[in-house]
Amino acid sequence: MDSMTLIAIVSILAAGLTISVGVIGPALGEGKAVATALTSLAQQPDASATITRTLFVGLAIIESLAIYCFVVSMILIFANPFWNHVIAQAAGK
Amino acid sequence: MDSMTLIAIVSILAAGLTISVGVIGPALGEGKAVATALTSLAQQPDASATITRTLFVGLAIIESLAIYCFVVSMILIFANPFWNHVIAQAAGK
Amino acid sequence: MDSMTLIAIVSILAAGLTISVGVIGPALGEGKAVATALTSLAQQPDASATITRTLFVGLAIIESLAIYCFVVSMILIFANPFWNHVIAQAAGK
Amino acid sequence: MDSMTLIAIVSILAAGLTISVGVIGPALGEGKAVATALTSLAQQPDASATITRTLFVGLAIIESLAIYCFVVSMILIFANPFWNHVIAQAAGK
Amino acid sequence: MDSMTLIAIVSILAAGLTISVGVIGPALGEGKAVATALTSLAQQPDASATITRTLFVGLAIIESLAIYCFVVSMILIFANPFWNHVIAQAAGK
Amino acid sequence: MDSMTLIAIVSILAAGLTISVGVIGPALGEGKAVATALTSLAQQPDASATITRTLFVGLAIIESLAIYCFVVSMILIFANPFWNHVIAQAAGK
Amino acid sequence: MDSMTLIAIVSILAAGLTISVGVIGPALGEGKAVATALTSLAQQPDASATITRTLFVGLAIIESLAIYCFVVSMILIFANPFWNHVIAQAAGK
Amino acid sequence: MDSMTLIAIVSILAAGLTISVGVIGPALGEGKAVATALTSLAQQPDASATITRTLFVGLAIIESLAIYCFVVSMILIFANPFWNHVIAQAAGK
Amino acid sequence: MDSMTLIAIVSILAAGLTISVGVIGPALGEGKAVATALTSLAQQPDASATITRTLFVGLAIIESLAIYCFVVSMILIFANPFWNHVIAQAAGK
Amino acid sequence: MDSMTLIAIVSILAAGLTISVGVIGPALGEGKAVATALTSLAQQPDASATITRTLFVGLAIIESLAIYCFVVSMILIFANPFWNHVIAQAAGK
Amino acid sequence: MDSMTLIAIVSILAAGLTISVGVIGPALGEGKAVATALTSLAQQPDASATITRTLFVGLAIIESLAIYCFVVSMILIFANPFWNHVIAQAAGK
Amino acid sequence: MDSMTLIAIVSILAAGLTISVGVIGPALGEGKAVATALTSLAQQPDASATITRTLFVGLAIIESLAIYCFVVSMILIFANPFWNHVIAQAAGK
Amino acid sequence: MDSMTLIAIVSILAAGLTISVGVIGPALGEGKAVATALTSLAQQPDASATITRTLFVGLAIIESLAIYCFVVSMILIFANPFWNHVIAQAAGK
Amino acid sequence: MDSMTLIAIVSILAAGLTISVGVIGPALGEGKAVATALTSLAQQPDASATITRTLFVGLAIIESLAIYCFVVSMILIFANPFWNHVIAQAAGK
Repeated sequence: MDSMTLIAIVSILAAGLTISVGVIGPALGEGKAVATALTSLAQQPDASATITRTLFVGLAIIESLAIYCFVVSMILIFANPFWNHVIAQAAGK
Repeated sequence: MDSMTLIAIVSILAAGLTISVGVIGPALGEGKAVATALTSLAQQPDASATITRTLFVGLAIIESLAIYCFVVSMILIFANPFWNHVIAQAAGK
Repeated sequence: MDSMTLIAIVSILAAGLTISVGVIGPALGEGKAVATALTSLAQQPDASATITRTLFVGLAIIESLAIYCFVVSMILIFANPFWNHVIAQAAGK
Repeated sequence: MDSMTLIAIVSILAAGLTISVGVIGPALGEGKAVATALTSLAQQPDASATITRTLFVGLAIIESLAIYCFVVSMILIFANPFWNHVIAQAAGK
Repeated sequence: MDSMTLIAIVSILAAGLTISVGVIGPALGEGKAVATALTSLAQQPDASATITRTLFVGLAIIESLAIYCFVVSMILIFANPFWNHVIAQAAGK
Repeated sequence: MDSMTLIAIVSILAAGLTISVGVIGPALGEGKAVATALTSLAQQPDASATITRTLFVGLAIIESLAIYCFVVSMILIFANPFWNHVIAQAAGK
Repeated sequence: MDSMTLIAIVSILAAGLTISVGVIGPALGEGKAVATALTSLAQQPDASATITRTLFVGLAIIESLAIYCFVVSMILIFANPFWNHVIAQAAGK
Repeated sequence: MDSMTLIAIVSILAAGLTISVGVIGPALGEGKAVATALTSLAQQPDASATITRTLFVGLAIIESLAIYCFVVSMILIFANPFWNHVIAQAAGK
Repeated sequence: MDSMTLIAIVSILAAGLTISVGVIGPALGEGKAVATALTSLAQQPDASATITRTLFVGLAIIESLAIYCFVVSMILIFANPFWNHVIAQAAGK
Repeated sequence: MDSMTLIAIVSILAAGLTISVGVIGPALGEGKAVATALTSLAQQPDASATITRTLFVGLAIIESLAIYCFVVSMILIFANPFWNHVIAQAAGK
Repeated sequence: MDSMTLIAIVSILAAGLTISVGVIGPALGEGKAVATALTSLAQQPDASATITRTLFVGLAIIESLAIYCFVVSMILIFANPFWNHVIAQAAGK
Repeated sequence: MDSMTLIAIVSILAAGLTISVGVIGPALGEGKAVATALTSLAQQPDASATITRTLFVGLAIIESLAIYCFVVSMILIFANPFWNHVIAQAAGK
Repeated sequence: MDSMTLIAIVSILAAGLTISVGVIGPALGEGKAVATALTSLAQQPDASATITRTLFVGLAIIESLAIYCFVVSMILIFANPFWNHVIAQAAGK
Repeated sequence: MDSMTLIAIVSILAAGLTISVGVIGPALGEGKAVATALTSLAQQPDASATITRTLFVGLAIIESLAIYCFVVSMILIFANPFWNHVIAQAAGK
């Protein structure tokens, strides 16, 4: 197993794990937030504007956590500095 | 075990794990959201338009988390840059 | 162990794990959704049309998560690009 | 250990795991759905037709998740393309 | 370790695991269903016919999940195609 | 380690695991069912006949799940086809 | 390590695990049943005969699950067919 | 490592695990039973005789589960048939 | 590694595990029992004699479970028959 | 495997794990905070200013925890001092 | 690795594990007991003497479980019979 | 693998684990604190000053726990005494 | 790896584990106790003296559990008899 | 791998684990305490002085548990007696 193969393997594995493990928390958090929003809307339809606005801000902040994971996952697949270094090294060899 | 085989193995495993682990969170979150929507509808049928709209926006946002996982899984199977590089390298050899 | 065997083994294992782990979340989510629908129906039989419609849309969205897993599982068994490549390579050898 | 043995072993293990792990979720989900149906029936016997119909649709959808696992498990035992390929290869040898 | 022994070992292990892991979910689901049926009967003795009927249909559907596991377990012990193939191969040798 | 020893070891281990893991679910499910039956009896002593009957049917169905595990466990110890085959093979050698 | 030692080791380990893991479920289930019986007795002292009778039947059925494990554990220590076979084989050697 | 040492090691480990894992369930179950008994006594001091009697019968049955584990643990330490066989064999050698 | 060292190592490890794992259950059970006793005392100070007596009997029974573990742990450290046998064997050698 | 490859592999793996594990807690915490904010808004629309302000301060503090993880993850990918040292060493060699 | 080192290593590890794992249960149990005592005191300040006395007896009994672990841990560090034996053996050698 | 590489690897891994595992607790704790603050504000808007003040003190104390982890993580990456020692040793060699 | 190094490694690891695992239980227990104390104070401010006194006695007893772990951890780092013995042995060699 | 490297590796790993695992409990405990304080303040603003005082004493005691972990972590990094001994030994060599 040469360096290139090893780095490729680990990158693939890490990319998959990062996004799959990383969405568990946000998914549960967003599910809870949406669920409470619906309860609140049913309980107090008059406050619908405030509730919807707060919900969307909250969802955006929680979604940002999943985006961090997606960004890291994409970096590991398409802009991996370690991989680039090894490729450059192999090309220059 | 040559490089190509190893990368193929890890890609297969990672693709499967990514999507299967990645849907656990969204599935639970969506189940909770849908369940609360139904409770709210039964409690306040008049607010049905607002509740349904908020539910669908919420489901779309939670679904997006599973889509991230599906995208990464598909990339690992059909557009894997590491695999392409190894194939190209093997062909050019 | 040659390349072909290894890829076959990993594909079998990944296919089984993907679908079995992947239905846990949707099954729990759908069970929760159906259960709440029944409670809501008993509580507010007049809203039965809206509740049933919302339930079926919700179930469809949650089911889609399990479908993603099933699709990946089927791809790994019957349309595995890595396996096809190895077979082609072995045939052309 | 030759290729055939290895693929057989992994197929057996994967088939068993797929169905046993795969029924946990649906069983819990269905148990929850049936339980709520019974509560609802006791609470609102007049809505019995709607409740029973919705329950059966829900159970069918959740059951489908377990069927996916059973199908994959059966494919791995009786229609395994990797096994067929190895057998054919061994026969043609 | 020859092929036959290995396949026998894995079949034994998989058969045991399949049925033991596979009954956990159904047992919990059925326990919940029966428990709620009893509560409902105590609450609404007049609906006893509908409740009992719905309970038995529900139990049958959940039991079917355990039956899938039992079937796979029996297949692995008494009608294992991989074992049969190895035995036939050994006999024909 | 010859074939016979290996199959014996795995059979012992699998038999023990099958029954011990397999009774966890049924035990919890039955405990829940019995507990609810007692609550229901205290709440509605008049429905005692229906409750007791439903309880016993339910317990029988849940017990059947543990019986499956016990049967598989006994088969693995006393009627193990793989062991019989190895013994026959060793005797005929 | 000869065959006899290996089978002895695995039998000891399996016997211990079978009974220790196997009593967890029944113990929790019985604890729940007894606890509810006490609550019910305090709530409805007049139904004491029915409650006590149902409790004892329930405990007997749950206890039977632990007995299965104890039986398997005793068989593995004192009437182990695999051990008997190896001893007989060693004696006849 | 000779046979005697291996069997001694496994016996020690199994004895410790059997009793330590085996008391978890009974301890929780008894704690629950005692706790409910106290609640019931506070709620219905007049039924004190029935409650105490039912509690002691229940505790005895749950304790029996721990006794099974203790018995197996003691058998493994002081009356281990496998150990006795190896000692006898070593002495007669 | 000679026999004596191995048995010593395993005895130390098993002794520690037995008591540490074995007190988890009793500690939680006793905590629950004591807690409920306090609630009951606050609710029904007049039944204080019965409650205290039942509590102490209950604690004694739960404590007995931890005592079993302690006894096994002490036996493994100070009266280990396997260790004694090895020491005697080494001395007589 | 030379030093450079090893450090690259571990950095990739650690970067992925850090962010994916690190967002689980914040996501759940934020989901809980947003959910309670919505309930509070529905209950007390007049306090909307105070509630929204407190929510945003709280979310910022919880988000900061995820930011720590993201920072560490980015440092490990793009500003890894260990990697830089090895590269410098390799270049200067 | 000679006998002495191995026994020292295992003793250190076991001592640490015994006390750290062993305080989890008692800590949770005592926390629950103290918490309920405080609730009871707030609810029924007149029964303060009985409550405090029962609490302290209860805490003492639960504390005894942690003391068992501490005693075993101390024995393993400072009065380890296996270590003493090895030291004596090494000195007398 | 020389000393330097090993220490670098372990430092990277430990730094990532420390911060990612270390924020789980604080994130959940802060989420709970913020959530309760919002409930309290909605319930008692007049006590808003005291509640906000207590909340911020509490958040600061919980945040300090995450800061400890972040500090240790930074020390392991940028001020690692073990790494510095090895580098110094390598430079002076 | 010589004896000294091995004992040092295990001591470091055990010291860290002992204190980190050992504070989980006490922290949760104390959090519960403090939380209930605050609820009780809000409910019955007149009993503040008794509540505070009982709380501090309770916290002291729970804290003692963590102190046991800290003591063992410190002994393992600074007064480790096994380490001292090895150092003495190495010095006297 | 020489002694120095090994001790450095284990110290780094243990330091990271100690603080990250060790803050989980205190963080949850403090979160619970702060949350209850806020509820109590909203419920009984008049008792604010007593509540705040009790909260801070409680937080200090729980924080002390995390401080123990931080102290051990710092000792392992900056004042590690085992490391110092090895360095001294290496210097004096």
